Parts: sequence; structure tokens; C-alpha cells
Amino acid sequence: MAFKTREGYYADLRAMRKNVYKNGHAIEDLVTDPATMRLVENEAYLYDALQDPEFDPILKETSSLTGNEIVRWISLNTEPDKLKKSVEMKRFAFDHVGTCMAGICVGHNIMNVLWSVTYDIDKAKGTEYHKRLEKWIIETESKCYKVAGALTDAKGDRSKSAGQQDNPDASVHIKEIRPDGIVVSGAKVMIAHAAVCQEIFVGTGTGYKEADKDYAVSFVVPRDIEGLTIIQTDASEGREGWDDMKYGDQSSYLIFEDCFIPNERVFMCGEYEFSGSVIDRFVGNYRACIGSCVAGQGDVMTGAAVLMARANGLPMKKFKDKLINMTRISETVWGLGLGSIYAGYMHESGVWFADPTIACVNKIYAAENYAELRRLLQDIGGGIAETGCFPNYKDCMDPVLGPKIMKAISANPEVTPENRARAARLGEWYARAGGLLAFVHGGGSPDGCKLVINRNTPYEKYAQYAADIAGIDQTIKDPQ
Amino acid sequence: MAFKTREGYYADLRAMRKNVYKNGHAIEDLVTDPATMRLVENEAYLYDALQDPEFDPILKETSSLTGNEIVRWISLNTEPDKLKKSVEMKRFAFDHVGTCMAGICVGHNIMNVLWSVTYDIDKAKGTEYHKRLEKWIIETESKCYKVAGALTDAKGDRSKSAGQQDNPDASVHIKEIRPDGIVVSGAKVMIAHAAVCQEIFVGTGTGYKEADKDYAVSFVVPRDIEGLTIIQTDASEGREGWDDMKYGDQSSYLIFEDCFIPNERVFMCGEYEFSGSVIDRFVGNYRACIGSCVAGQGDVMTGAAVLMARANGLPMKKFKDKLINMTRISETVWGLGLGSIYAGYMHESGVWFADPTIACVNKIYAAENYAELRRLLQDIGGGIAETGCFPNYKDCMDPVLGPKIMKAISANPEVTPENRARAARLGEWYARAGGLLAFVHGGGSPDGCKLVINRNTPYEKYAQYAADIAGIDQTIKDPQ
Amino acid sequence: MAFKTREGYYADLRAMRKNVYKNGHAIEDLVTDPATMRLVENEAYLYDALQDPEFDPILKETSSLTGNEIVRWISLNTEPDKLKKSVEMKRFAFDHVGTCMAGICVGHNIMNVLWSVTYDIDKAKGTEYHKRLEKWIIETESKCYKVAGALTDAKGDRSKSAGQQDNPDASVHIKEIRPDGIVVSGAKVMIAHAAVCQEIFVGTGTGYKEADKDYAVSFVVPRDIEGLTIIQTDASEGREGWDDMKYGDQSSYLIFEDCFIPNERVFMCGEYEFSGSVIDRFVGNYRACIGSCVAGQGDVMTGAAVLMARANGLPMKKFKDKLINMTRISETVWGLGLGSIYAGYMHESGVWFADPTIACVNKIYAAENYAELRRLLQDIGGGIAETGCFPNYKDCMDPVLGPKIMKAISANPEVTPENRARAARLGEWYARAGGLLAFVHGGGSPDGCKLVINRNTPYEKYAQYAADIAGIDQTIKDPQ
Amino acid sequence: MAFKTREGYYADLRAMRKNVYKNGHAIEDLVTDPATMRLVENEAYLYDALQDPEFDPILKETSSLTGNEIVRWISLNTEPDKLKKSVEMKRFAFDHVGTCMAGICVGHNIMNVLWSVTYDIDKAKGTEYHKRLEKWIIETESKCYKVAGALTDAKGDRSKSAGQQDNPDASVHIKEIRPDGIVVSGAKVMIAHAAVCQEIFVGTGTGYKEADKDYAVSFVVPRDIEGLTIIQTDASEGREGWDDMKYGDQSSYLIFEDCFIPNERVFMCGEYEFSGSVIDRFVGNYRACIGSCVAGQGDVMTGAAVLMARANGLPMKKFKDKLINMTRISETVWGLGLGSIYAGYMHESGVWFADPTIACVNKIYAAENYAELRRLLQDIGGGIAETGCFPNYKDCMDPVLGPKIMKAISANPEVTPENRARAARLGEWYARAGGLLAFVHGGGSPDGCKLVINRNTPYEKYAQYAADIAGIDQTIKDPQ
Repeated sequence: MAFKTREGYYADLRAMRKNVYKNGHAIEDLVTDPATMRLVENEAYLYDALQDPEFDPILKETSSLTGNEIVRWISLNTEPDKLKKSVEMKRFAFDHVGTCMAGICVGHNIMNVLWSVTYDIDKAKGTEYHKRLEKWIIETESKCYKVAGALTDAKGDRSKSAGQQDNPDASVHIKEIRPDGIVVSGAKVMIAHAAVCQEIFVGTGTGYKEADKDYAVSFVVPRDIEGLTIIQTDASEGREGWDDMKYGDQSSYLIFEDCFIPNERVFMCGEYEFSGSVIDRFVGNYRACIGSCVAGQGDVMTGAAVLMARANGLPMKKFKDKLINMTRISETVWGLGLGSIYAGYMHESGVWFADPTIACVNKIYAAENYAELRRLLQDIGGGIAETGCFPNYKDCMDPVLGPKIMKAISANPEVTPENRARAARLGEWYARAGGLLAFVHGGGSPDGCKLVINRNTPYEKYAQYAADIAGIDQTIKDPQ
Repeated sequence: MAFKTREGYYADLRAMRKNVYKNGHAIEDLVTDPATMRLVENEAYLYDALQDPEFDPILKETSSLTGNEIVRWISLNTEPDKLKKSVEMKRFAFDHVGTCMAGICVGHNIMNVLWSVTYDIDKAKGTEYHKRLEKWIIETESKCYKVAGALTDAKGDRSKSAGQQDNPDASVHIKEIRPDGIVVSGAKVMIAHAAVCQEIFVGTGTGYKEADKDYAVSFVVPRDIEGLTIIQTDASEGREGWDDMKYGDQSSYLIFEDCFIPNERVFMCGEYEFSGSVIDRFVGNYRACIGSCVAGQGDVMTGAAVLMARANGLPMKKFKDKLINMTRISETVWGLGLGSIYAGYMHESGVWFADPTIACVNKIYAAENYAELRRLLQDIGGGIAETGCFPNYKDCMDPVLGPKIMKAISANPEVTPENRARAARLGEWYARAGGLLAFVHGGGSPDGCKLVINRNTPYEKYAQYAADIAGIDQTIKDPQ
Repeated sequence: MAFKTREGYYADLRAMRKNVYKNGHAIEDLVTDPATMRLVENEAYLYDALQDPEFDPILKETSSLTGNEIVRWISLNTEPDKLKKSVEMKRFAFDHVGTCMAGICVGHNIMNVLWSVTYDIDKAKGTEYHKRLEKWIIETESKCYKVAGALTDAKGDRSKSAGQQDNPDASVHIKEIRPDGIVVSGAKVMIAHAAVCQEIFVGTGTGYKEADKDYAVSFVVPRDIEGLTIIQTDASEGREGWDDMKYGDQSSYLIFEDCFIPNERVFMCGEYEFSGSVIDRFVGNYRACIGSCVAGQGDVMTGAAVLMARANGLPMKKFKDKLINMTRISETVWGLGLGSIYAGYMHESGVWFADPTIACVNKIYAAENYAELRRLLQDIGGGIAETGCFPNYKDCMDPVLGPKIMKAISANPEVTPENRARAARLGEWYARAGGLLAFVHGGGSPDGCKLVINRNTPYEKYAQYAADIAGIDQTIKDPQ
Repeated sequence: MAFKTREGYYADLRAMRKNVYKNGHAIEDLVTDPATMRLVENEAYLYDALQDPEFDPILKETSSLTGNEIVRWISLNTEPDKLKKSVEMKRFAFDHVGTCMAGICVGHNIMNVLWSVTYDIDKAKGTEYHKRLEKWIIETESKCYKVAGALTDAKGDRSKSAGQQDNPDASVHIKEIRPDGIVVSGAKVMIAHAAVCQEIFVGTGTGYKEADKDYAVSFVVPRDIEGLTIIQTDASEGREGWDDMKYGDQSSYLIFEDCFIPNERVFMCGEYEFSGSVIDRFVGNYRACIGSCVAGQGDVMTGAAVLMARANGLPMKKFKDKLINMTRISETVWGLGLGSIYAGYMHESGVWFADPTIACVNKIYAAENYAELRRLLQDIGGGIAETGCFPNYKDCMDPVLGPKIMKAISANPEVTPENRARAARLGEWYARAGGLLAFVHGGGSPDGCKLVINRNTPYEKYAQYAADIAGIDQTIKDPQ
């Protein structure tokens, strides 16, 4: 099979309807517009890498459905080792662009989750969602599409459920069921990289009750479907020259307004009893993957710290303990990601899921320690790499000011001032959260993780172990 | 005495030579240029507050030299309680602008330090620096000037001392001694708010040896002195509307090129043996003050977290433990700041210094935990307040997109979407380090603090306590 | 004034009724019984130190009531500096015995608290408790007594208040009010060092409501008063030789059964509205003092770590970062203790109290980081100092086994194996919590501290700061 | 195959030479002597469990050598899943005895390591160690022996290598090579549970150079071999009744004096070049297993915390966040253990090893957070569970004192005071490090782990990633 190239990806983007907005207007060309070019560059990288056979073991897989060689990010995790390779692919991606490549992550996870949930629904209700999904996967795997995953609704007033909101569009929901499909409306917010993917896979982001039935919906749409408005977030304008990185991260607000979805692309339609399974299975795999994102960024941040130390004229050994601590964070999230997969389970539909407890422990660790990775990088980098403490590129290039600045920042004579500036900006980029935007809430909030951990911990069993060891001869119940 | 007003401050800035550069050109009007207006607004706040008698106890002091009522930031800390009030003034300032107001901080500290060091030099060498400084203080206290403090040299290759550098201008140094003054050159970098102060007080940022004699220099200059080029840092352009705060933080690169300083403004000139005292005494007071900056910001961040929780529709009690943890960080740095002052000492010249060990412990704690404050704010704020996850102001104001966004972000019906957006941007502003730029290295690196702690800890005494308690009957020496 | 000596202290203990029990029998001689000798040795140390004029500034004070020179631990803190000296005295004590010397701590604090609370009660109710207390202080200050402070009741079922318990004796309470005094019963538990003090000062450990009126009581008793049974805790028997330290820490269970307290020693009798003030003021000073205990122990633990490194044949510099981290913990609790005093307030009755917020922040920090001090000591000490990993003294002294062990533990040739063993045991002693028993709950639980912090944090003020900075134009209220 | 019973184990112990000493004499009967009975009870538990078919999947395995059903702890880890099951067995063991069961851990690991290292030596040198080991394994697997692993030498002066010591016996070494075997001498110290195992497997605990050749030795001996003196550590005498747990942990000092080891039990004899491989491979598996020990204990400590909360009269939900934090620690070490196995590698000899980087990250995490588990347990448990704050069993049983104490500690009326006492003692047991003695240095020091992490982190690769992303066009070398 011929795998899509960077040019093919550009062509896909340029062929779509112009429904991505920023700064008050629709973006004409996502590939070149300063508001989205860094995002496109992220996702384009893997299309380049697909052409290099060296990376085949990590990027390609044999389809369990067709036997064809396909991109890993549209494959089913039919064995634990496939899920393991999927997280390896994500670390690889972060290592090379230094930031999120959401088009191979969330959509891939949600597709695997729906594989299992459609199986369960069909079994219980006699529906045929599973077949529909299989058909979509087979069609899509040959196209090498990037598929964004959309689980986060705007939600509205947090003290009320979706069905109780004054504004029904605070979450995506079914407005009408027609013979040939459904009509949906509502907001999905903070969807990473949706603007530059070819398709968007929508799933439920929480467990719904009967009163929220209309919100129990899952489907997949082309990014430019009629009725969908996409608004890019991030008020930061692109900086010039080395002041910014080649790559970037950005989320979208998706506003669905009376979008029609044909039945063959609908995978859940009102079966609220199964909405909880979607999110439960999703978080296991997704939070396992968090390990790869944070480890991949940790790799780059560690490398950036090494560069800064050297550019400042100091050997690595002076920062040995701090560098080891950076590795400790990266390898902890990585190890917990792998551990959660290894402790996982096979669903009856034939896909593997990570253990949710270890995965959630990992997510909280990542949310708490990503900040520490950034702090260590700043600590090693020195004042020149602190946020907002470096003159801008334009002044560095100015014929009068530039030489003064370059002279002032000359340090290790083996390193050009320009390269010291570039390393400092990389450090600052991470310090400003350039690498991973939503590091606390992305993949679900730490508090949400704690609920999962709490629900899964067998406290009564542990209390019995303790009672046996201490020789306690009664069952001690929880006081009312 | 009539205290300077906001208008007087604007007039001072506008009367000066245009030697502040950004984006390749000299800034015409600091007050209105988007590159500096937020910085000016910070410093202007206190000129407003000076007019309000309610704030007199915190902002004003009786001069120990003239008996006049003066601004606290040009007073001598002749008692511990005056130093205590100085940190209270800084917390007050942060509470009201949410970020650094450097014009009342570093210069004030370095002036007090030089009061003591000039006393020591004069006593040892028969010079008359102390008188000169007294004269400058008396002149300046009546002008209500903001005085930036400049201690951080570019430094060049970190493996070499100032006198060994290939580039002698990597640090500020004396090029020539004339009968009526000195000529200095070199770079001072990351000097907070220097661009919008009326004067700049230069001191040594490290202890020098004889070979670095020319670098042992201290003086004060008007910000617009001939030969001084000031380049503003921070490549971020001002964002629009509520995307940015009213206030901002920014550092300057100062490039001195053959600047002539008249003798009456020179307070150290080659007395390298005293350069170490400057930095030693400076760090005590400065790192004590760190407590007020971080506590002040912690107050605002805690408040922002409360607003976000409520705007999301959730009561504070849901985040009680996290809010308490925010307070714990603020009050720890605050308590350590006060503790270091209380454990301090009086110098023979009549000014009080904080205990350097506790002050350095505080600095490291602040550097490690400021990041945690930010993380807690993000955690409570929810995904909407994460970096780069919110549509920009321009799109929110767009007639077509705006209403879609406003509808999507409606939450607690008691709070307007606009105010929810504003609260989210405040949270994001802190997450992007908008509040305190150089939170790791500002005031000296954590590693520098560790050196001070290590030097001041009486390990042999502690070893003797342990030996006595354990009944060890020999003195155990450190192995070679 | 002649200050009591060690011998005088022994005589006091020996003259008392034998109401201290351990191992099923009353202890005949507290001074020599293996169950209490280490505790007596702790408290005896200061009687030695009182004879050395070098320590006068720290151990002695001029009485604000009589003008006599008295021991500091029975003085009123009539200025902030007196409270500061009191915490200095405690660090001094810990430095020399390595563990708690409760006889100068809790009683001293509760006496100062009651000075203020009796003043308030008398003012409100026309009672004469304040005079009674003054009389008792004047009498006692000349006797150099150690006074234990007793605030912790057994409490019973935590889901019920004192007055609702099935067992009324779960807390100390008034059983009868007679013309000449009161009769009290109930259990006070975990009272540090009560067995070896001459007097015990009882106060309320929580705020009571009207229904708990009988529990609102405060008084002071000789340790051997009729009706009081004291049971020593700690199931560890004394170890032999260097296996144990010379000093020890231990708590008592006090069981009051129909004890008669004459009116002149009663300082609160049913005024439940004032019981909350007792605990509120107590925790401020007490948790400020925590800083001195933990810092004093930190000093000794740091010294022990230095000794272990050297005894193992390694120089200090190999553990520089860890040693600095130990100092950071000690100086943080110390600095916060001083800071809370400096931020404190004067009560109308003329005694100074520490700021409760900073004091509570300190207590939680201490509870969390004392464990870290122990861990760092173990880390530096090496395996030989880990709990339970060293042969016992008896085997080291055995003619056959001893030489084999001594040969096995020879390391740095400059240090005798015996001294290496002693240093290892000191490290293990701390690891087993030998130094400070109740380091988590002593002085009140961390959760109790959080309640105080929460109550004292001006969240609404902070929210207003944030709103002003973000330009939010409405008051955002907490959702119901 | 009939698996050994508790009685068979007792018989093994009683049939051995009496070479275990404590309190200055050889222990007559390890099973009943108070100094060792708790240790025997630990190891006996699994002999009971072997009789219960429910536990077969975890405790039994098919021998890869003979095809027989054998105990897992004498099996080869010929697949990753076998290593995974081995850590599951250890968590199971800790769950049931609450503390270390070293007889199934270290020896099992070292046997697998030597399986690979003997393979390497034979291949390189034509020796026949691998065959010898295979023969020993086959013989031993049918005996269900517990095999202690001994890697830790006394080491002597840490600034010198083994061959440079004044005392050659500071580490175990070859004194003589005879045709039929070798003679060894020297001290192995802190060997967990060696006294109550049937065999002891000795391996090198560090990498040796040529000068230390005689120290490169590995062999296995019966515990009671001639010339071996075993001295039990831990100066704590057994406490009475519920003051102690049924189970205990303890280490031994092994003193080898001219012990003759027949060739068939010698697996390395001077091949110093391979000594480093022993420790490198050992730490991977061992530190992976740390996850199971700490998780198993975490389970019991979490259960103990639940019991204490309830016994105090409080529901679990009051401590929800703390309980979740306990689980987070347990599941982090567990997840990292599994992750390190999953990321491991197959050695040419057919046994699987864990990834050393993740395993070492785990060890450091465990060393740092075991202390936190204890602290959380104390925090939830309340003052009654703090070290040394509870009256002893003897007093609780006393006819006069007992009822007073029992009345004082009555709390939740549904829980007997005795059971509250037992739960409190279990909490205190952990607080005093009763559960896992050498939690910092066991399995190698944190600093040793850092060396492994540092050696394995590909810093240059990471620096290149960073350089590529930042557009840095030169290779930046480490300054000299």
C-alpha cells in the first residue's frame, strides 16, 4: 500500500470546506496561515516518517480486519503488545516534534473503545453498530487519515447534568432521529488538533442517565461536515524566527449546529446505559498513553537542559542530580503506562484495555510532575531561559541592537550566540506550556482519576488483611 | 510633602531620553506603547495609592536622615520592623496588580546594602562613599522615584571569572578612572522594570577576586544616561481585550557603552574585597522579600481559583483541600520571610539585615512551590483555564462566532460568559508565567542559595551534639 | 535565687506518692527504674544547665510579676521577644538531649493561654480566676518546677461530642462543685512526660457547647494528687548499652477518678463559651514552638548523618545536597515558628500570641517533613543504620561473637567500631521514631490545622483582588 | 509432587546445626525461640498456602528443566509472564503476613541471574558453571526449600575497594582453591531471613576489578554449613500479646570462616569481569519486585488505616483523599514493577530480565514514598496509633489498671477496645518500621539506583532531539 505523503496531507486539508476560524475569519489555507501552520507541521511529520522504512515497526501494523499493512493509528489493539506499540509510537512522535500529535492519539483510542462498546450494545440490544464501525475502519485504514477524538463537551453549569441545562447545546446531543441518520447539535470544546485532521470521532465523555438519553451519542464526521464551525483557541500570535518553535499545540471549539450524520457513521444513539463504558475504557488506554506523551516531552526537555548547560559553559555533571530527576519523571510515567497495559484485560470483542487504576495513578502523577519537569528545565537553563527574559528575535536581527545583544549573550565560545538563543527559547517554550497545553485536565481531571481509583480499590479486602494480621476477631463496619 | 502622582510619573518618563528599544526601534512613549504600557501601569498604581491616606502606614515612612515623611521604598531599614513593613508593602503591591512592581524592590534593597558596605569600605580604607550615598538618598527621597536595582551581569562563559572572559563586556566594569568620575561598560541583563524607573542602582552580583578588580563597582544612574541602551525582553506581543491583563512583567537588557558616572554617584570602585558583602547582604533581604511577592501572587491566584470554581458552577467547598494548600504555600513563603527578618542582625551602620540561611531556604521553597501554586490554580480552574485552550478575544467579539462561543461557555447562570472568560484568562495568565517571570532564578538561583545554606550550617557543632547524645568518645573528622 | 539542681529534682520525684504505673505495678523510683530513667534524664538535663551562667540568657528571665530572676518556662510572654526566647530555649534543649523535654513546653504554653483566658472570663463574668492563676504562678516560679500540660482527652466515639458519650469519663469533666473546690473525673491521654513533672496543668483541648458544659474546666494539680492514676505508654523495654540512647520520650495516660481540686487551683469551671479560646490561642504558640523541636532534632539528625558518613569512610561532600536538604527542613520549621511569632498579636491581658495561620502551616509542614528528615538520615547513614539491621549490644559484648562483629563492622580506620555502632544506633533510634513520638498528631492533627487555616484565610478578599485585576464587573457568589 | 508442609519446614530447621546466635548464645529451637519465632511464622505461612489448591496458579509453576510441578520460587523466569507471576506471588505474601518473606525473593532472583551469568562465563571461558547450577536447581526444586540470597558484604572502608582493605574479611572472598572445591571467608551482612532458610545463595554485590579477583565468587551453601556463624540483628525483644504482630522481619550477619564449598556448588570463582553483570541484572529484577513488597504492605497499611478510622468512630469518607493517596503509592510501585518487566529483555540463556532504568526509578520512588505511606497511616490513625503513645499489653491485662485503660480507649461502641488496641498497634508497628526494615537501602541504595539511571539515559540522543526541534545547527559538546 502506498502511504500518504506530506503533500497528500496538504491536498486533503486544502480540499476541505473552510470551516476553521480564527481572528474573526475562516482560514483560507491551514498549511500556510500563521495561526495553524505549526499545528499542520506537527501532523505532517509522521507522513514524512511513513516513507522511511526504518520506522515501519513503530508506525505500521497488519490490519486485523483486512490483513493489509496499515498505519498503526487506525488499527485495533487486538493484543497487549499492539497497545504497547501504540504508546511507543506516541513517544516517538513527541521525541521528534516536541509536542502533541493528537491526530494519532485520541481518535485511535476512541475507535478501539467503540469497537468494544458497539459489540456490547449489539449483543444486548440487537443493534448493528459494530458492523458499521468495522466498515468505517476498513475504509479509513487505507486512507491514512488523522482522526481527532472528541469527548469533551462544554458542559455548562457543572452543578447540573446534561439533560437539566438551560442551554441544551452545552453538550452534543441528538436533535432528531431520521430514517437515514441523525441530526446533532451542541458544543465540543478543547478538542486537540481537530482543525488539521481529516475526520473527527465523537464519543460520550461521561456516563449519562436516562434523563440525558439524547446525549448518549457516538459518530464520526469529516472535519468539514456541513453545520460544523471550528474555532481555534490560543490568543498567542505566532512569534517570529527562533522566538517560536517550528511546531505547536492548539485546541478547537467545535460547534455542531443541526449536523446530519448518516446512519452508517452512527455508533451509539441513545443507549445511555453504555455511555459510562465508553469513558471508563477510554481513560484506561488514554491515561496509559499519557506516559508516552510526557516521557517523550521529558526526553526533549532533558535534551534541552543539556544544551542549555553546555551553551552556558557548564558540563552536564554539574547538574547530574537534576538531570536524573528529569529522567525519573519521564521513566515513571512511561513505566506506569507500560505497567497499566501489562496489568490490563481483553474485552470479549477482542481488543485489549489497560488497567484503569494504574492508568489513573499515572494521569495524576503526570499532571503533578509535568510542572516539575518544566521547573527543572528552568533551573538548569539559568536566567536566560526564564519566561519573558530574553530580547525578541526582531531585536536580535536589528543591525544596531543585534550585535549588542549577541555580544551580551556570548558564553561558551564553542557555541554560537544564535544557538544559545535558540536553546533558551526552547526552554522558555516549555516553561510557557508550549509543549503540552492541557497538562492538568487533558485526558480527564485529576479529581476524575481519583474517583476511578477510589471505586476500584478493594478497601474491604485490605481491611480484612490488616485484621487478620493484627488478630482482630470481628468485622469492623463503616460507621453511619 | 507632596507625593508624586501618576501624572507626575508619566511626565518623568516622557521627559527622558528615548533609550528604550523593542522591535528594532526606540520607544517613543513608554506610557502608551503596547510593548511597555502594562509595565508602566504596574508602577503607576503605587503613585495612585500614595494619594490615599489609608495606605500611608504601609507606603510612607519618616526618613531617618531628614525626618521628612517619604516613600518607604527610598527609606533605610533602621529597625527590623521597617524591613517587615517593606515586605508588607510588597505583598500589598502584588495583591493589587497581581504581578511584580520591581521599582520598589531591588533598588530599595541594594540601597540599604550599600549603606552598610560603603560604611565598611570607608572604615577600612578611608574613602567617602558613605557620605556620597547619604547625599544621593536625601536628594532622591523627596522625588519619590522608582529605582531599579541591577545586579545580574551577562556573565559570559560560566566556567571563567569576569576578568578571564574573552569578552570583557560580559559584565559591567570600570574602563577608566578620571578625576571627576568613572567610565563604565558592559552588559547587565534581566533587570526587572528598569525601562520604566527613573533611576538604576548598579551593584556587584557576585564576589570578585583581585584579578576581577575592575568589576567591583557600584553606582547609580538616571535611566536615560548617555551611553546606556536598554532593550526590552519578552517576544510576546500584547494580546487584545481580556486576553491579557491590565498589568505585565518584563525585564531589560542594559548595555553600558562608555558611560561616564560622576564621582558623587559612585559607591564602590575597585574594592573587590567588599563585593562579596554586597551580594551576601542583598540575598538575605531580597530572599526574605520573595515571601511577599509569592504570597501576594498566591493571594490573587487563590482568589482566581475561587472565581473559576464559582464561574464553573461549583462551590468552594469542593476544592477546600486544594485552596488550603494554596494558602499553605503563600503563608509558608510569607512566614519564612518574616522569620528571616526576625532572626536577622543589625549592621554597625545602623541598618537591619535578614538571616541569610532562612532567607535562602525561603527562596528555594518559593522557586519549587510557585510552580505548584500555578498547578493548583489550573487544577481548580478546569480545562477552560488551561494554557491555550480558549478562543481569542477577537473571535469572542466577532458578530457571527462570538455568540456561538458565548453560548458554549455559559455555565453558572449567575455569572456572565464574559466574566467567566476573564477569570479563565487570569488563570491562564498565571499558568503561562505572566505573573512572575523569573520565578526560578530571580533573586539568585536555587543552587546559589544552597551554597549559602551550606556555608552557614554549623555541621561540626551538630555532629558534636549527635556524638554527645550517642556517647561517642572521639572527634570524628571528615575523611580526606 | 538558687535554682533547683538535678539532685533537688530527684528529691522532688522521690517525695511524691507512687501513682505512676508500668508493667502492672507502681514504679518505686522513677529516677532509676528502667521504664522511666531515660525520661527523667531528659528533664534533669536543664537542671544541670541552670547552674551554668553561660545559659542564663536562654534559660532565665525576669518575672513580670515579682521582678525575680526565674526559669523561663514559668514566665509570662509579655513581649514577642520573650516568646521568641522561649522557642530558642526549646531548640537548645533538643540540641542537647536529642528529644522532647515536654516539662518546659506544654505547661508553659497553657499557663500563658490561661493568663489571657482567665482575664477574658473575669471581665465578662466577674469571676476571679485571673488572680488565682497569678497567685499560683508566683508560688511556682520560685520552685523551678516542670509543669506538664494536659489538653488531650481520650474523647471516646469521635462521631459524638463529650456530653453525648455513653462513657462520660472519655473526657475530663466536673462531677461535683463544692464550696471549696471541684471534683473531677475522666481520662487525659498521651500527655508527654507527665510522669516526671512536679505539676500538671489541665486545659480544654477543644471548643465545647452548652451541652458539654461540665467539660469546660481548667486547673492545675500536683502530679501525685489523690485519685490520679498515671500509666506509662510505650511497650518497648529499655534496650541495653548503646542499643538505646541515654534519653527517651514517653507519654502517659492520666486517669482522674473523683479528684478534689481546691478552688485556688481552678481557672475555668463551666464557662464553655471560653473553651474555644483556650485551644485557639494554644495552637498558635504551640505550633510556633513545633519549629524549635523539629529544628533541634534536625540539628542532631544532621549531625548524626555527618557522623555516619564519616564512620563509613566517606566525606561529607558526597552527601552535600542531602545535608542541605536536612538543613532546609530544620530552618523552614524554625523560620516559620519565628515568622508566626513576628506576625502575632498582643492580648489585652498583656501576653503575646503567635499568628495561628502561619503556626498551623508550620505544624502541617513539620508533620509531613519530619518523616523526610528521618528518611534522609537513613539514606546518608547506609544500611548499617536501617531499623533492625544491626546485631544487639549483648552480642557485640560477647567474648566469642563480639570480635567477629567488631571485625565485620570496621570501616574508616580512624573511627572505632564501637563508635560506628553508636552512630548507627543513633540513626536507627530516629528512624524508629525515638526522637519525637507523636510527630503527626502531637500539637493537634494536620486536619485540625487545616480547619484553622481555612477559617482564617480571607477568600472573599482574595477573590476581589483577582476580579479587579481581571476586570470582572460583578460580585461572584458561591453557588448553593 | 507432595509439597512441603509447615511441619516439614519445622523439621528442616530443627535438623540443622545450631549456628544461629542472638543474645550471646546459639538458639536451640528457631521455631519457638522468641528471638526468631516471628520470622519462622512468616516463612511458614507459604508452606500452609501450598496445601491450598486455590493458590496454585500463583505459588506453583511447571519446571522448565524437569516438567515437574514445583514451587514458583525455585523456577526459572523463562518468559516475561513468569517474572510477572513472581511479583504477584510476593504481593500475595505481603498481603497475608504484612511483611517480608525474604526466603522466596532474593535467592530466587540471584538464581535466575546466575543462570544467565554462568551461561556467559561458560561461553567465554569454557567453564561448566551453568551445568552445575542446573543440577543444583533440579535437586532443590523438589525440596521446596526457602533460599536466602546474600549479596551485601560488610565492605569496610567505603573509600577503598575490596582488595585494598586492611581487613580482607570485610567482604566474602576465596582464600584457597582446592581440586575439589574452594575455601571462603568474610562477612556478609544484613541478609534478610537467612537464619530461617534451608539454603543461602551467595553472589557478588558489586562489580570487581582484577585486583579484587578473589572477591568474584558465587556459590550456594546449606544454612548450617561448617564455618558459618549467623548472628541475628534487631535489639528489640519480642513484645507481649498484641503489642507485637504475629510476624516479623529480621536480618542476619553471616560470618564465613574457612568454609569449604565443594565444586558442584560453586558458580563463579575469580571471573571478576562478570561480577558487574551479576549486580546489573539482579537490580533490574529485584527493584521490579520492590513494587510487589511495597504494594503488598501498602494494601495492609491501607486496610489498617480503614480499621483505625472506623475504630475511632469515623467513616472512611472523611479520609477519602488520604486513602486514595495510599493507593496511589501502592499502585505506582506496582505499576512500575510491571512496567519494568514489560520493558525488559530476554537473555541468550533463556531467562527474562526487567528493564533496569524503570526498575531503579521504582526503587527510588519506593524508598522515598514508603515513608509517606507510614505517615499517611499515622495521620488517619490518630494519636492513639502514634509510636510509643499506647500503654503496654501487660498493663491492659492488669486487673486494676486494665479496666481503666479499656474504659479510656472505648470509642466506636461497635468495636471492642481490645480490637481498637490491636489496630492501633498494627499502625504503630508500621510506623516503627516493623513491616519492612531496610526500606531505604534494601535492594541497593537510592544513590546506586541513580548511577544506573544516569548510565542508561541516552542524553546525547535527547540533546539531538532538542537541537532538531530548536533548529540548532551545530553539535554542542560537553565543556571540559
